[in-house]
Amino acid sequence: MSIATTGPVRVVGTGLLGTSVGLALTQHGVPVQLADPSRTALALARDVGAGQPVTPGDAEPVLVVVAAPPDVTADAVRDALAAHPDAVVTDVASVKGYVLSELRAWGADLTRYVGSHPMAGRERSGPSAAVPDLFLGRPWVIADSGASSDAALLAVRHLAVDLGAVPVGMDAHEHDAAVAVVSHVPQIASSLVAARLRGLGDAALGLAGQGLRDVTRLAASDPALWTSILAANADAVHGVLAGLRDDLDVLLGALALAAKADGPEQVELGALAAIARAIADGNAGVARVPGKHGGATKHYAVVTVLVPDRPGELARLFGDVGAADVNIEDLSLEHAAGRPVGMAAISVLPARAEHLEAELTARGWRLVS
Amino acid sequence: MSIATTGPVRVVGTGLLGTSVGLALTQHGVPVQLADPSRTALALARDVGAGQPVTPGDAEPVLVVVAAPPDVTADAVRDALAAHPDAVVTDVASVKGYVLSELRAWGADLTRYVGSHPMAGRERSGPSAAVPDLFLGRPWVIADSGASSDAALLAVRHLAVDLGAVPVGMDAHEHDAAVAVVSHVPQIASSLVAARLRGLGDAALGLAGQGLRDVTRLAASDPALWTSILAANADAVHGVLAGLRDDLDVLLGALALAAKADGPEQVELGALAAIARAIADGNAGVARVPGKHGGATKHYAVVTVLVPDRPGELARLFGDVGAADVNIEDLSLEHAAGRPVGMAAISVLPARAEHLEAELTARGWRLVS
Repeated sequence: MSIATTGPVRVVGTGLLGTSVGLALTQHGVPVQLADPSRTALALARDVGAGQPVTPGDAEPVLVVVAAPPDVTADAVRDALAAHPDAVVTDVASVKGYVLSELRAWGADLTRYVGSHPMAGRERSGPSAAVPDLFLGRPWVIADSGASSDAALLAVRHLAVDLGAVPVGMDAHEHDAAVAVVSHVPQIASSLVAARLRGLGDAALGLAGQGLRDVTRLAASDPALWTSILAANADAVHGVLAGLRDDLDVLLGALALAAKADGPEQVELGALAAIARAIADGNAGVARVPGKHGGATKHYAVVTVLVPDRPGELARLFGDVGAADVNIEDLSLEHAAGRPVGMAAISVLPARAEHLEAELTARGWRLVS
Repeated sequence: MSIATTGPVRVVGTGLLGTSVGLALTQHGVPVQLADPSRTALALARDVGAGQPVTPGDAEPVLVVVAAPPDVTADAVRDALAAHPDAVVTDVASVKGYVLSELRAWGADLTRYVGSHPMAGRERSGPSAAVPDLFLGRPWVIADSGASSDAALLAVRHLAVDLGAVPVGMDAHEHDAAVAVVSHVPQIASSLVAARLRGLGDAALGLAGQGLRDVTRLAASDPALWTSILAANADAVHGVLAGLRDDLDVLLGALALAAKADGPEQVELGALAAIARAIADGNAGVARVPGKHGGATKHYAVVTVLVPDRPGELARLFGDVGAADVNIEDLSLEHAAGRPVGMAAISVLPARAEHLEAELTARGWRLVS
């Protein structure tokens, strides 16, 4: 595969993202210069093959990728712009407006700066979790500074494409407003729901199902990183969260009325409607979440199969799905605590569902139809 | 398999749960009498094999299972206790305190009443979605009325076990407090987050990742059903939700301070700590969610594999996992909108991870290590 990025590229910050960038570029034959204030992180990044630590004799980079925590990104971008007067500089911080306004206030050369944000991550962090495929197929936001040169925009766009990502043009303000809704507020909601579980007894926790697990999965995120992200995008997050709080207050009022009523007929007029509206508004919102293939309106048929909890059973199931020549579009496993059987919900194209059901039944699988 | 429940059993309400109970009992040879105010639902339940509609010549039931919507459950239980003076009566409504207090107020015979709640459900509803395996391996709460006779408790416990569920003893108040935390408040949070997506542009929605999908999955739930559930458990839900709102207000205050500050050093003392605490409290809560095998402290190793989006690829992967003789304890698929490659995160016992990684690598899979 031929790529558009020509070296050398300097990567400032060798955490998960920076090291993954270095790994991918190195595999493409681009010389990568690595920098990080942590000598351990730097050595690890070198050891996994992400490039070579910066040395005094290095050639001037044509591109600098700042992959530092959000709260030090603006400084690092400013320093890079000053140190490399011919280089294009980008950063991969998950908040963009804050970086840009700092740079603007400092009078940095914005013609050579393009903010960016690859929508990629993993549950693990640090250079040892880095992989060259991290960006494969992910959206990568390219944020014009408003003064970015065409050459600078093209260079960052090439970087995204070379790493297998899909460039998405969006300015810093649009980006921050979008991630407040699709990422930052969901993180907060997940953390707040999970926090309710702290004092709960084991018997009550034993009733937890897949729904709770889904809602609280994000709550395992790193507090230090998220404090930095949320503080940097505080304005946009506050706006979205305040809207959520208003809805929550309406719901709390309705629940208080329902709690003191003696049966549904006695609930004060409008309270039940307010509860129903909160759920219906959620229906309308979730219907807009894009599915695997990007179509918010795309629907799959779901074939649900009982799977005994033994080695090889899922293997056998997916072997049989493959033998039926049906592609699995999405998949989820449901299971209860400590039980011998789970259910695999297999999403397939609607036209293939009947065929799959027949094939699986013929092979002895029990379907939950 | 021999079962303890002897017939006849009357099922009042032939929706998803009632019809599934009828199907399972019928398969065990127990005579099932079906009742439902909807003639269509009743005929459907009969057609799928859940039993026979009630007729005047029916033998007296020994057990009545009320599987009606929460807001009519208490009436139906009262009527059943009156109509069948020798029968044990249970209900499967997802809120228990409200039913019990109505029955108590009416002076119903609580010695023959035992509330219950099978923690089972599906995304689809109605008799056509019913399956006899619905309860397999699921917790089934058995709620002593405080006056329930030993014989009545045993009869309902037998029902749960016969249907493959795991009985969990808990009184109505404990049950309602538990489901408020593990089910009702997560539902509300999911709906409130999803509601933020209504006005969002397509470009912003294109940045949505797995985290948003997880948090908002529950938001597709039925408004009418959930209005009934939340109104019936309004007191407990209000309590938990008020705690969440208090945390949210602290966070909103901290974000407002962060939004007006010029860099993290300028944020008023304590605001950043408040943000970090909200995320850390979520960490502590989610750590208590039981995993597949019921141990809140059980950890699995995760092996993440890149999977091309073609028919048979997941099949091939799970075939290879099976060939390596490794059991899949949990599984999640990550994928971005419209992209050609996904990642399968396979949870396995830690002692098996290294072996699995070696086997998969040897078979040509690309691991995201």
